Parts: sequence; structure tokens; C-alpha cells
Amino acid sequence: MKHNFGAGPCVLPQEVFKQASQAVLDFKDGLSILEISHRTPEFEAVMTEAAKLVKELLNVPEGYSVLFLQGGASLQFAMVPMNLLSEGQTASYLETGVWANKAIKEVKNFGNAHIVASSKDANFTYIPKDYTIPEDSAYFHFTSNNTIYGTEIFDIPETNIPVACDMSSDIMSRVIDVSKFDLIYAGAQKNIGPAGVTVVIVKDAILGKTTNKIPTMLNYQQHIDNGSMFNTPPVFAVYVSLLNLRWLKSKGGVAEIEKENIAKASALYKEIDRNPLFKGTCAVEDRSRMNVCFVMENPELEKPFLKFVEENGVEGLKGHRSVGGFRASIYNALPITSVHALIELMQIFEEKNQK
Amino acid sequence: MKHNFGAGPCVLPQEVFKQASQAVLDFKDGLSILEISHRTPEFEAVMTEAAKLVKELLNVPEGYSVLFLQGGASLQFAMVPMNLLSEGQTASYLETGVWANKAIKEVKNFGNAHIVASSKDANFTYIPKDYTIPEDSAYFHFTSNNTIYGTEIFDIPETNIPVACDMSSDIMSRVIDVSKFDLIYAGAQKNIGPAGVTVVIVKDAILGKTTNKIPTMLNYQQHIDNGSMFNTPPVFAVYVSLLNLRWLKSKGGVAEIEKENIAKASALYKEIDRNPLFKGTCAVEDRSRMNVCFVMENPELEKPFLKFVEENGVEGLKGHRSVGGFRASIYNALPITSVHALIELMQIFEEKNQK
Repeated sequence: MKHNFGAGPCVLPQEVFKQASQAVLDFKDGLSILEISHRTPEFEAVMTEAAKLVKELLNVPEGYSVLFLQGGASLQFAMVPMNLLSEGQTASYLETGVWANKAIKEVKNFGNAHIVASSKDANFTYIPKDYTIPEDSAYFHFTSNNTIYGTEIFDIPETNIPVACDMSSDIMSRVIDVSKFDLIYAGAQKNIGPAGVTVVIVKDAILGKTTNKIPTMLNYQQHIDNGSMFNTPPVFAVYVSLLNLRWLKSKGGVAEIEKENIAKASALYKEIDRNPLFKGTCAVEDRSRMNVCFVMENPELEKPFLKFVEENGVEGLKGHRSVGGFRASIYNALPITSVHALIELMQIFEEKNQK
Repeated sequence: MKHNFGAGPCVLPQEVFKQASQAVLDFKDGLSILEISHRTPEFEAVMTEAAKLVKELLNVPEGYSVLFLQGGASLQFAMVPMNLLSEGQTASYLETGVWANKAIKEVKNFGNAHIVASSKDANFTYIPKDYTIPEDSAYFHFTSNNTIYGTEIFDIPETNIPVACDMSSDIMSRVIDVSKFDLIYAGAQKNIGPAGVTVVIVKDAILGKTTNKIPTMLNYQQHIDNGSMFNTPPVFAVYVSLLNLRWLKSKGGVAEIEKENIAKASALYKEIDRNPLFKGTCAVEDRSRMNVCFVMENPELEKPFLKFVEENGVEGLKGHRSVGGFRASIYNALPITSVHALIELMQIFEEKNQK
């Protein structure tokens, strides 16, 4: 049994893998999920149920649409200003890491980006708190969880302008008030499903106001009007997302998984803070529940520790090159037993390295 | 055993389904293909081999790049003019059906579209032949196979300007001279793999000339520079494409599959022409080898015939609503035994309906 702490694409529930594997052989009357038309009633039911489950699990209010698109958050970085900004307008962004920065870069083709605050000065190890969002911005954008640095924004910034959020790495991990957002997007490959599909939750009323010429495939309204089937959707990725959303519902939904996520993160941070060999890399109040970043007091022990845990079934613990050390990604589907296994390995390593 | 004549997503080889199903359970050391990072050496090897096989199977000359992107041909309709056209310039298009028409529509955001010829006057049942491609166009675009109408272009139009081609439904089905093209794109879900990935073959020298502002994710050069991994690729769809490309190579490659495709199409058209109940819908010289469209002399027999074949294991034979009747899509992976089974059912139905 492997313990997969990879940052994404990441572990999904084992039962989802089994069901997905079976559907590749036989989804319907002996036909593979890979060979059925997206226009069959069976796949239309998959798409409908998947969108319905997103709405149900996140308690999405009336007036919002749920879309399953392609291209990942990276394409959303361009689609957001393309659909919400007009020439000469400014959008405000909070800069909390590389992904926020990539989103900011795409604004320039459509208007101006104003950075309300940045934690670049400290390698993005904290979330800026005191900043003002100009009310004349077209919208405000932030990244709710920063996978690389292990920071997360728990308090949704208050503003009267539309709020857009890249929620790729913490969507479905905790209860959120969707009514405080106007556009949420998330590459599926953490808590929703496999790589290859992107979920967008958009308030219908914010669309249709830009003067930009929007190519059909990049126009949210086109996808809303066509139920995410303007063209052939990524059939298998949507189906596996459905399986995973069903699993989440069967677990008791987002409120229940949030409790587990808090328990997993608390246990691991507690060990990092207790174990004299390790230390966390982020401001304590901004610590992510999804990506736990830590280093060793003695950097020379990092290679041996990584080797030790990998020999004991741990995968994907190496930190991102821009932070170093370790990153334990503990998304919804990572079992708490894997967290306990890692903690035990940290303790064994501590004993081994006592003078 | 089902005979899947669906127009796409469509049948893939049974051994590909088996290998794909197994990889969902265990791709590497007990980890699912759905949970591995795209930055692992194992997946990087998948991406490299897939691109290499496309080059090998199509004999792609030096100076071209092969990309695996997202968004389908529909996103390419916009990316082509975005990357190849500048404001005020004109691109020439051949209008041979709905998909060509959709491509034409996307040009207007970036420049002007000139339609060199159209077969709209006869519901796209033939390929226009006598037309002039203006040499001052930025590029010439055509659709090599028209799934809905069952027409295919076997002679590549001659021109000195760059040639872009939507080859979604006949790529890998016959030997082509890639050097006559500057940009080829294809949604994978016919002859390459499952839905959710798009193959682009682009001549490097034609890029970098537009004055358009191109969002990063829509810039071919960005994807070339990053080996199709600027962001998280659709891991599973790329992997299944690799399995399918390996299968094609093991079959003897494109030249061998072309022989089979000719045998399949010839047998079916022969029966359509012989059987007094049926008739083809297209100009004989433009008949597609991939999508065989036909109707019945007596339209009242169409429902009973469809019911009869469906009761005998035939799937996906219903024609597109804009043509009616039947469409047998006989892509690479459809076994010739399925074509023979359909022919036999046509003959049994003929006997049953003899006066």
C-alpha cells in the first residue's frame, strides 16, 4: 500500500479507481466509457448528475451555472479577464504565489491588472491581510490555496465588486459560502477528479458585459447555453469526477470531509511543531489544510529522510523546488491512516537521529 | 459483441481498453494512472513516446512539432487565426460542412475569412473542386473529412500559402504527405484516442508572425517550448492515445491500416450500391472512407431497419439529423468483421422486404 502525498494529479478513493477501471471495460451494454458518444442519454445523465452534485455539495445558490470545461486553471487565467474585463478597465488581484502571478500575467491582453497586495517579499509564506480593494475595479481575483507554499485563505475578502477565485486545490475540502463569489474555477485534479477537466461555477448575472470579442470556446455563456456540451467534452474525466463526487456525498458531504481534513492537517502540523527535526515554512495562521510544507532544522538530513520515507511506501513528498524540503498534500481522498503513517515515520527518524 | 459504428467518441481496439483499464488500477508500483504526477519520469516518458509515435506513423518531417492539447478541434478553430492571422489580414477557407463553417465563424475575431468555394448548395454532399486560393491570404484552411455528410478530400489542394487542416476524423487512416501542410489538428476521439485531448502538428517556421496578443495557453509556441506540459496535461487521455498509437504501429502502421480501411469502405459502399433498398448520399468520387452515409429508397423502412440492426448488436448507426438515414463510422479500430456483420444484416433485411 502506497501513501500518495503528491500535489496533483493526486490520489482519489480506491473505490473510484475500481469503478473507473470497470467502466473502461464496460460502461453500458458491453461498451467502454471511452467509446460511447457524449450525445447518448447515458452520458448526458453523467454530465447532468455531476453538475447537480457540485451544486448540492457546495450548496450553490440559484442564479449560478456549473460547467465542466477543458484547459485547466491556466486557461481560466485568460478566460476570466476575457469574459469579465473590457479594454481600459482594471481588475484587482491578490498576489499570493506563482499561480496568482500567472493569473495576473494573462490580464494584460485584455486590460490592466492592479495588485492589491503581495507576499512575494517573504517567498509567499504568508497571506497579506491589510489591503484595500478599489471599488472601481471590474472584479477582484484571488487564489484560495497556494499549493507550492502551503498557505490558504480562510476568510473570504469582503468587497462589493465581483469576486473571482482560483479554488483548484481546496475546492470541496471545506464549507464555503458560494454567494460571496461570482466566479469560482478549479482544475479537477485535486479534490474533484482526474486531470483533464476544469470545474467553473459562475454567477450568470456577471456575464455579457464585456466589449471583448470572445471566441466561442472561451465564452462562458456558450458553455452555459450548451450544458457544457458545446463540443465533445472530456467524457472519461467527467465520469470519474462524477464517481468521486458521489463518493464525497456518501461520506457525508463537504462538512464531514472538512472535519477529516482538519483532523489530518492538525495531526501533521502538531508533529512538525513537536518534532525537533522539523519546522513548518508558513505563518501559522495561514497554514493550508491541503498542502503541508515543512523543512528540516538540519538541511543535510533532508535527503536521508526522503529516502527513508520512500522506502516505506511514501510517494510525492518532495517539496516544490521554489520552497525545498517537503510538501505533504493531504487532499480529501488521502486517508488519515496515511497521515498517521507519515507521522510515525517522522518519529522513527527522530529516534534514529538522536545523539 | 457489439458493433460500434458511432461517429465519435468511437470504438478503440479491445486490447487498448484492457490496458487502459489495468492502468487505472495500477500504472506504476500500485499507483493508478489517475493519481500520478505529470512530472514523474514515467509520465514524461508517455508524453515523449506519444509525440514520437505521431511523428513516426505520419512520417512528419524535420521542423514540425507535435503537441497534445485540450479543447478539441473547436478550440483550434480559434487558435488557428489567433496564431496565424493579423488584424486586417484575410484567411481563405473551403466550406465543406458544419465543422468547416464553425471554423470560418471564429476567424472574424481576428481578421477576415474568404470562402474559396462551398458545397452548401447541395447540403455538402460533394467536395468543390474548381476554385482559386488567393495567394495574398494568410493561410488556406480545409476540413479533410466531413463526418456528418460522409465526404472526404483525397487530393490536397495545391497552393503556395500555408495550409491548415482539420483532420479530426481521418488522421492516421491513410498515408498523407505532411510536408504539404503547415498545421494539422485533430480531436483525438476518432483514430487517435479517447475524448479529452487534441493533437496538433505544426511547422515551427509559420509561428511568431502575428501581431495578435495571444493568451499563454492559446499560444502554440508556449506549448512547443514546454513539451505539451505548460500546465497539467490530460494525463489519462494522452496515455490511452499512446496505447492506441502503439497498437497502430503493431498493425504495420498507417499504410497497412489504409489498406484495411479501403477494404472496409469498398465492401460497404458496394453493398449500398447493389442492395436495391439502399442508396448513398454523396458524390461517388468524394465518398469518405471513415463515415459511410446512406439512406433507404423507401424512407418508411428506415425506422424498422434501424430497430432490426440494433437488435442485432449494431450501435450508433443513426445518421446525423442534418442528413437523416444512416451513418456507419468505420474508423481504424472498427473490425472488418463488424462491417461484414452490417452487410449481412442489410442483406437479411432485403430478403425480408422482398415483395
